[in-house]
Amino acid sequence: MDFKPAAVIFGVGPLDGIGGAMVRKVAAEGMPVYAAGRNQEKLQTVEDAVASVVPIVTDVTSQADVKRVFDRVAADNCRPDLVVFNVGGNWPMPFLEITPDFFEAMWRQGPLGALLVGQEAVTRGAGTVIFTGASASLRGKPLFAAFASAKAGLRAVAQSMAREFGPQGIHVAHVVIDGAVNGERVRSLLPGYLEAKGEDSGLSPTAIAETYWQLYKQPRSAWTHELELRPYAETW
Amino acid sequence: MDFKPAAVIFGVGPLDGIGGAMVRKVAAEGMPVYAAGRNQEKLQTVEDAVASVVPIVTDVTSQADVKRVFDRVAADNCRPDLVVFNVGGNWPMPFLEITPDFFEAMWRQGPLGALLVGQEAVTRGAGTVIFTGASASLRGKPLFAAFASAKAGLRAVAQSMAREFGPQGIHVAHVVIDGAVNGERVRSLLPGYLEAKGEDSGLSPTAIAETYWQLYKQPRSAWTHELELRPYAETW
Amino acid sequence: MDFKPAAVIFGVGPLDGIGGAMVRKVAAEGMPVYAAGRNQEKLQTVEDAVASVVPIVTDVTSQADVKRVFDRVAADNCRPDLVVFNVGGNWPMPFLEITPDFFEAMWRQGPLGALLVGQEAVTRGAGTVIFTGASASLRGKPLFAAFASAKAGLRAVAQSMAREFGPQGIHVAHVVIDGAVNGERVRSLLPGYLEAKGEDSGLSPTAIAETYWQLYKQPRSAWTHELELRPYAETW
Amino acid sequence: MDFKPAAVIFGVGPLDGIGGAMVRKVAAEGMPVYAAGRNQEKLQTVEDAVASVVPIVTDVTSQADVKRVFDRVAADNCRPDLVVFNVGGNWPMPFLEITPDFFEAMWRQGPLGALLVGQEAVTRGAGTVIFTGASASLRGKPLFAAFASAKAGLRAVAQSMAREFGPQGIHVAHVVIDGAVNGERVRSLLPGYLEAKGEDSGLSPTAIAETYWQLYKQPRSAWTHELELRPYAETW
Repeated sequence: MDFKPAAVIFGVGPLDGIGGAMVRKVAAEGMPVYAAGRNQEKLQTVEDAVASVVPIVTDVTSQADVKRVFDRVAADNCRPDLVVFNVGGNWPMPFLEITPDFFEAMWRQGPLGALLVGQEAVTRGAGTVIFTGASASLRGKPLFAAFASAKAGLRAVAQSMAREFGPQGIHVAHVVIDGAVNGERVRSLLPGYLEAKGEDSGLSPTAIAETYWQLYKQPRSAWTHELELRPYAETW
Repeated sequence: MDFKPAAVIFGVGPLDGIGGAMVRKVAAEGMPVYAAGRNQEKLQTVEDAVASVVPIVTDVTSQADVKRVFDRVAADNCRPDLVVFNVGGNWPMPFLEITPDFFEAMWRQGPLGALLVGQEAVTRGAGTVIFTGASASLRGKPLFAAFASAKAGLRAVAQSMAREFGPQGIHVAHVVIDGAVNGERVRSLLPGYLEAKGEDSGLSPTAIAETYWQLYKQPRSAWTHELELRPYAETW
Repeated sequence: MDFKPAAVIFGVGPLDGIGGAMVRKVAAEGMPVYAAGRNQEKLQTVEDAVASVVPIVTDVTSQADVKRVFDRVAADNCRPDLVVFNVGGNWPMPFLEITPDFFEAMWRQGPLGALLVGQEAVTRGAGTVIFTGASASLRGKPLFAAFASAKAGLRAVAQSMAREFGPQGIHVAHVVIDGAVNGERVRSLLPGYLEAKGEDSGLSPTAIAETYWQLYKQPRSAWTHELELRPYAETW
Repeated sequence: MDFKPAAVIFGVGPLDGIGGAMVRKVAAEGMPVYAAGRNQEKLQTVEDAVASVVPIVTDVTSQADVKRVFDRVAADNCRPDLVVFNVGGNWPMPFLEITPDFFEAMWRQGPLGALLVGQEAVTRGAGTVIFTGASASLRGKPLFAAFASAKAGLRAVAQSMAREFGPQGIHVAHVVIDGAVNGERVRSLLPGYLEAKGEDSGLSPTAIAETYWQLYKQPRSAWTHELELRPYAETW
């Protein structure tokens, strides 16, 4: 029996976030798509907009949960050809106020989740695995020790995977998102922020999803492991 | 009078090199394309294959030559919306054998050519400027001091441009080519090399051109400045 | 009452490891020194060799343990002017064999320990905090996803600290050890390895400790945040 | 006949610059020292302060000049055991105003000078070769395309040398100076700048020279290729 290629997106929150945009892109391309997220309500919103999606409430820090997502894909006679790991939020905090619990939580949804999803992706026959990074993946800075530590650790997982599994034909990519994503999360946490910066000053989730899709479509003779996405007006 | 968007590709050699592939891609997209290269014979081959191309024999180390290319574009009522700088070959040489003349020649076709083309591109209204880099852009190694010095210097030009002109709406990208390009150059210089490494072990120029085109099409809310392209089997 | 400057070295194992060499160096300079390590027996060996050292059995992954070390320093009317975090071993493992427990253990003795020690160091008046890194801090590779993830995460902690606390006069440094340390650990795990590579092919712990000491002595007008140490014959 | 170890410092300007400080440091250590600089008057000031120095008016962009410096060292029965390349100033300029001549001048005193001095250093028996870099060595930015291109190109030369000659026992180091040097150059070009930033906000040339000297003294089992020096209050 043939397994049909499908996409599994981990870290689906608001419809207009990166995860939501990926779900819409994959569905528009006519490929089966699974949306894994923590929040049932947000998954419902995604499902309302994209009829074909299979939503699965998932905690990526739980190996059992992660396995269950892939079990479901297999039960549908699908193969997770494209796996996206798009988990992990950014909470600034002065260094001396970081608690071990907060630091651990950032790590669990960062490197640990990446490991769990990455291992299952490889085991279940993924062709492409894409991880969402941030500018903090590349360097630490004041207020971001916990986030940067998690994102740098996640990047090392992605890079190790790429170099171990690339020669076996699995394309592992890491996308550095450098800037604020123009979605409801930023608009609610930082009201007026993007408007003050000007048009196109926030990253369009649709544009991000387009680049993820192109990474998926790259032929194996010319793969990209890492690229960054940044609004034109962003200083860096 | 309206100026029609056109592409100008510097460093067009063999039809199956990166420059030649870009010419074919741009023409296939129905956009006017100018091919600048040192070698008239190679340009003729490109013109034989792509009827619409305008070939211009050019020495990118000459400011007058570079200006003449852009003058021609303007004379055709075109605007160089996409400019690609794809110049510079890789010649290994032990450190102590590098002559000042060789070192200078590498620099002229590297950072200096990039400066001359970059300045004209900005001045003449380019929307996107893409520079071809190499793994040597990122680090030096034995036998490659001259090439690495030129490519690192070129990368600094590209990065400085990106950060100066990005906020003005000009997208400057730098593509790190990590591996051998599967074209007549490598096949003649290193006969049997790619065959021994296996299928898809060399970078497909067509695939590279596809990525360049996608960079050109990125909306300004989510630009990539740097990415690398590498065959799946390449160790790094 | 004046507090006397002291050094606190976390991660003291064999006398001829980096931690042991630091203890010897500090004692030779006539500065009070505290040695924190997991293994009482190894600490005893260090104490047998360096009479003035105060050994403290410590689990750096325990906030209570870390605090107790600094409490002891304070109880002696000392201030931890130099704090070294030198914890974390390197265990290669194929990506698919990494268990969540192993991955977590690497993280606990890496970024988490670094956070706990870093926070206390800052709070207790440290002037210099030095973290031991590895080449894996800078990039992941096959077999080293867990170690690289931990070391990259630790580096991000160090960098965030340096940029937050540098302007407050605290010098935070990160030393990338690139190569095998010539001590009993490598000689027992990899018998014959260093001998086969030739004289001085392993990093001398004494030489490493000398560089750490120089970092401590740098005046604040010219601080180094990161440097690497590598045997002359190492390829990189 | 035995050749006596000596130091050759290229890029000696004001007595209180990096080059001048290196001359003073070497002389204080009792080692013969040669000072190569463009400006006879400044060399005279250095000679007035350091009686033992041998000043040589030198243009490092001239292979003949560079060879003549090393010829003089040999004529004195000395071997250039420590060679420092400390050439190249930083002139901001908008990208579109950079002339080919200015760009070339930056390159000549940067990568080309580094090549010429590096080749002679290796040929004449150097044990340690140290190159002065800048934060622009690591990334380009607005106004600094020419300087960054030169410094990045120089860094690639240093890195290629280190990896080619390290295994032969020659220590090649690259020091990234990140900040303003507290010397007469900055104080005359930017009067009041350092005073406004506060005490120790400029790099002390004496402190820089101390670190260069420590690099020279590192045993071959634990060499540093690259480190940065930065005032404590500098943001980065």
